[in-house]
Amino acid sequence: MLNINLKGQIKEYENGTTVADVAKSIGMGLYKAACAAKINGEVKDLRTALTEDCELEILTFEDEEGKKAYWHTMSHVLAQAVSRLYPGTKFAIGPAIDNGFYYDFDFAAPINMEALAKIEAEMKKIIKENIAIERFELPASEALELMKDQDYKLELINEHSANGENISFYKQGDFVDLCAGPHLMSTGMLKALKLTSLTGAYWRGDSTKKMLQRIYGTAYPKQADLDAYLLQVEEAKKRDHNKLGRELELFTTSEVIGQGLPILLPKGARIIQLLQRFVEDEEQRRGWQLTKTPYMAKSDLYKISGHWDHYQDGMFVLGDESKDKEVFALRPMTCPFQYQAYLNRKRSYRDLPLRYNETSTLFRNEESGEMHGLIRVRQFTISEGHLMCTPEQLEQEFKSSLELAIYMLKTLGLYEDVSYRFSQWDPNDRAKYIGTEQQWNEAQTMMGNILDHLGIDYKIGIGEAAFYGPKLDIQIKNVHGKEDTLITIQIDQLLAEQFGMYYTDKDGEQKLPCIIHRTSIGCYERTLALLIEKYAGAFPLWLAPTQLKLLPIADRHLDYLYEVKKELDALGFRTEVDDRSEKIGYKIREAQLEKVPYMVLVGDKDIENGTVSIRHRKDGDLGAMKLSEFIAMAVKERDTKEIK
Amino acid sequence: MLNINLKGQIKEYENGTTVADVAKSIGMGLYKAACAAKINGEVKDLRTALTEDCELEILTFEDEEGKKAYWHTMSHVLAQAVSRLYPGTKFAIGPAIDNGFYYDFDFAAPINMEALAKIEAEMKKIIKENIAIERFELPASEALELMKDQDYKLELINEHSANGENISFYKQGDFVDLCAGPHLMSTGMLKALKLTSLTGAYWRGDSTKKMLQRIYGTAYPKQADLDAYLLQVEEAKKRDHNKLGRELELFTTSEVIGQGLPILLPKGARIIQLLQRFVEDEEQRRGWQLTKTPYMAKSDLYKISGHWDHYQDGMFVLGDESKDKEVFALRPMTCPFQYQAYLNRKRSYRDLPLRYNETSTLFRNEESGEMHGLIRVRQFTISEGHLMCTPEQLEQEFKSSLELAIYMLKTLGLYEDVSYRFSQWDPNDRAKYIGTEQQWNEAQTMMGNILDHLGIDYKIGIGEAAFYGPKLDIQIKNVHGKEDTLITIQIDQLLAEQFGMYYTDKDGEQKLPCIIHRTSIGCYERTLALLIEKYAGAFPLWLAPTQLKLLPIADRHLDYLYEVKKELDALGFRTEVDDRSEKIGYKIREAQLEKVPYMVLVGDKDIENGTVSIRHRKDGDLGAMKLSEFIAMAVKERDTKEIK
Repeated sequence: MLNINLKGQIKEYENGTTVADVAKSIGMGLYKAACAAKINGEVKDLRTALTEDCELEILTFEDEEGKKAYWHTMSHVLAQAVSRLYPGTKFAIGPAIDNGFYYDFDFAAPINMEALAKIEAEMKKIIKENIAIERFELPASEALELMKDQDYKLELINEHSANGENISFYKQGDFVDLCAGPHLMSTGMLKALKLTSLTGAYWRGDSTKKMLQRIYGTAYPKQADLDAYLLQVEEAKKRDHNKLGRELELFTTSEVIGQGLPILLPKGARIIQLLQRFVEDEEQRRGWQLTKTPYMAKSDLYKISGHWDHYQDGMFVLGDESKDKEVFALRPMTCPFQYQAYLNRKRSYRDLPLRYNETSTLFRNEESGEMHGLIRVRQFTISEGHLMCTPEQLEQEFKSSLELAIYMLKTLGLYEDVSYRFSQWDPNDRAKYIGTEQQWNEAQTMMGNILDHLGIDYKIGIGEAAFYGPKLDIQIKNVHGKEDTLITIQIDQLLAEQFGMYYTDKDGEQKLPCIIHRTSIGCYERTLALLIEKYAGAFPLWLAPTQLKLLPIADRHLDYLYEVKKELDALGFRTEVDDRSEKIGYKIREAQLEKVPYMVLVGDKDIENGTVSIRHRKDGDLGAMKLSEFIAMAVKERDTKEIK
Repeated sequence: MLNINLKGQIKEYENGTTVADVAKSIGMGLYKAACAAKINGEVKDLRTALTEDCELEILTFEDEEGKKAYWHTMSHVLAQAVSRLYPGTKFAIGPAIDNGFYYDFDFAAPINMEALAKIEAEMKKIIKENIAIERFELPASEALELMKDQDYKLELINEHSANGENISFYKQGDFVDLCAGPHLMSTGMLKALKLTSLTGAYWRGDSTKKMLQRIYGTAYPKQADLDAYLLQVEEAKKRDHNKLGRELELFTTSEVIGQGLPILLPKGARIIQLLQRFVEDEEQRRGWQLTKTPYMAKSDLYKISGHWDHYQDGMFVLGDESKDKEVFALRPMTCPFQYQAYLNRKRSYRDLPLRYNETSTLFRNEESGEMHGLIRVRQFTISEGHLMCTPEQLEQEFKSSLELAIYMLKTLGLYEDVSYRFSQWDPNDRAKYIGTEQQWNEAQTMMGNILDHLGIDYKIGIGEAAFYGPKLDIQIKNVHGKEDTLITIQIDQLLAEQFGMYYTDKDGEQKLPCIIHRTSIGCYERTLALLIEKYAGAFPLWLAPTQLKLLPIADRHLDYLYEVKKELDALGFRTEVDDRSEKIGYKIREAQLEKVPYMVLVGDKDIENGTVSIRHRKDGDLGAMKLSEFIAMAVKERDTKEIK
């Protein structure tokens, strides 16, 4: 008998009992929901026979690894359906991915989107047939024989068998696939599914190899969850900054300029200008001093900072060290540049804390394939800052830096969407970092203490530190659910030494300052992308590129309207008059599509009564009111940066 | 007999009469002042014998070429003095330069600055001796014999004699120098002189050759003019932005970042921020739309624009066309980038004029030796703009662009210092330009008409056009008298075609717009440099990095002072409290050195009477006044951008 630890409860089972049997012994509900299992923390197939005492956790669709097994099983059902409908098809690979699964096929004759419905119907049939899924292993020679008509599988078997191990297969009815698993017990355990798209994909992602057809899909145990997911995807597509941002003429890209180099059109550039002024003013108020340092430097600078050894792949280098006297590189970070400002003269404890901020443009040499909208770019501008302080000042300054970031996030309405990550080094990948183990342990302990003291609820990210120190990352998910770092606050005790940034302390000793690297609002381009998605383009009044659209009911109202405009412009509002000879309904619909916060309409009655008629893009008709009344309302909304 | 045309007046002289004789015949005053002559427009020596009818102009120190002959003669006197004082010295070259002359020597034993006084005394002696200066020629072989001990001269003779011509010499007493002239008639014609500096200089400027010693000097016919010049140089040195800007901690440079890449420290960055906001707001008010385009692009873009063929030497190229799939280059200009914004959608006549402005960073791959302070730099930020309009709109838009630039210059107090240059192409250097002769003639005629119509008083600069079109350049001299282009407004009819920037006109036809390239305030770095020199660092109140320095007479006044500060800060003033335990006189002197516009002092009497005591950096003590009274004054001065 074995002692099996199920979430702390020890139960006895006969040696050789399978995980599926254990699940069944607990209850049919769990058995039906089971997708895979964790044995001593390792993900295993439900068919695994238990042969020694262990901890066992049954994984369902609620667990990340359970989902993967569920979706992976569904990809086999997809392949089986294709094998029934399109005999002669060659099968490549079919993994689970972030939000579902795909399978790559080499069809005898390429299929089109219409075929997906037919395949989906066949898949539902296979699920209804509730075919048992079995696992078996073969030595390589037999595996090759079994798959002799499947070129791609043969290639995979030859690779996998290089170390002499058996090849594992899963079989459901007459369909057999080479696969490491894990899988559900039968096709009937699958429920709601949807094939979502059909694309091309090179075999092994290699553009010199054959282009296959890839079918994407997703699946859920409940139809309602699938529907909710599909709706959310639709909604996300509409809000996707890379689509909506272009439609609203916030930005564009150009083939001849290149990927990852977005062009901010007037409306997008205006928002960035507003954000930049807001940030610079707020930082000034909090005691930060603006610098403006150059965007490139000789390799000498990066050799001192460590970027040359630890970051060169991500940098644009100008010139060739073997040929040119002077080699420059575009900067990927601002730190070593602001340090030169610190080093401009001798420093004493009286200068500290010294807080330098900068609206700083950075460059990263990313691969072309990785580019995306305003998010993955080769050039971006960040609200950068570096703060030099004494060890005693560190916690307070860290706290102030964090408070500033939170203030920014709250003002933008993004705060509710973020989470914290304490990014640490990876001691098993030492070459990535400068400094000693002791220095890293010290820095991480110090930062951990500060975070705990401030009561910050964080998860830990091993290997996510900067090469010179640990970070607190403020993480945010985009509209597609992908998590990214929006803001980062770092503690650095290594670079001050590299650059010899001493200060004279009260006791006359030369000491090294602690340095905080931080951003307050992140990269402007990325923040703009998040705002586009958050507000679906309907920006808060203070940020809207056009704040007020002025619409005359008829041409005879234009004179009055221009008087109104003059008054609004004088108060700093960004206004536009739509004086085209179009119907008013058409103009309202257009302003609505442009997501202009307020429409100010003027008709006969308004002129008679000295009013304006106000429409809000969301709340609709607000009726006629005195201009002064509207102004009071709008000024308040704008100046308090209200989010409606 | 010859007919000699002297400023329109024909006089008869015997064939073979020398220029000097002609001068003497007109008057001894002219003879004594004569430095050289122009015969049919060509600069010649006074000793030249006239052998045919010609136009003749006698050049004095008042003429540029006369000055050069005067200074060149003085450099020979310097060499003669050295030959007397330091026998065995080898002589290199000794030309006239912009503000005087130099001579390079290879002393047997290097001299130091103290030696200059002795040499100067000897030079004065030589002038007093009034030695006649004679010109003669020798065939190369005899020239080599004559100069056999002078290695540098031998090298020069060997070069000059390559085409078989005779070598020309000038002789004054026992000193003979290889020289093409022209020179004055005798050393006694020289007057006031000053040796100004001693530096090292490589023979032929080649760092692999021997380092010589160079003595710089200047000279004037009147001692008073020399004194005035030396005073002006002293004054210019004090105002030199490259010196004063560093002293005031406006900017610095760093050896490890590299030359031509200045670091704007907080005070300098603040001024640029203020200028940038001022410019962007004013441009917005005048109907310009802000863009923010990337700082680099694929070579594809520059191939269309012509930069790749006509400007590549000045660009930083990232990658190697023979190796890399994608080659990028940092932008030297903004034009092709803003054109991509125009090309974002189809345009119609209703979109025109379309005015795009941008606070645009540009990069120029300058040689290291050419770098200087904030003026000659590898990276700079310019208030850039491109305006697309119909031909009918061109003149009005050109006028508006010029008015905007003038408004900027007047606001900064620089307008009185500028002059205009109409920069045209050089038809003899066709390879520098795109477009046909006809297109250039059209564009220049159009621009000339506009300039004449606007009544602009310009000089013409041949070969100063951009490679794509003619320019109106607004020129300004720096504190050292060196002229540079501050602002430029260009008309371009060629690039719209290259980029296919069509618009649909009223008649339904596809047409190309006219484009104006323009800046409104120039490069921010250069404008800052000019402002530093113009105001010797004492910026107008609205631009001063620190506007008000708050000084307590004693510590007990600090509480009251901080109340005052709160009130001033709330009004947006940039204030600093000097709360160090230093004497008040010391603090005032320091604030004065920092050129802070106003000092706000608080003592017992102020607290008693509810006043503040005001000092202005220039006007001194303004006495005690109510805070409200001071605020009213300072707010007015700031908000009207007054120049005091």
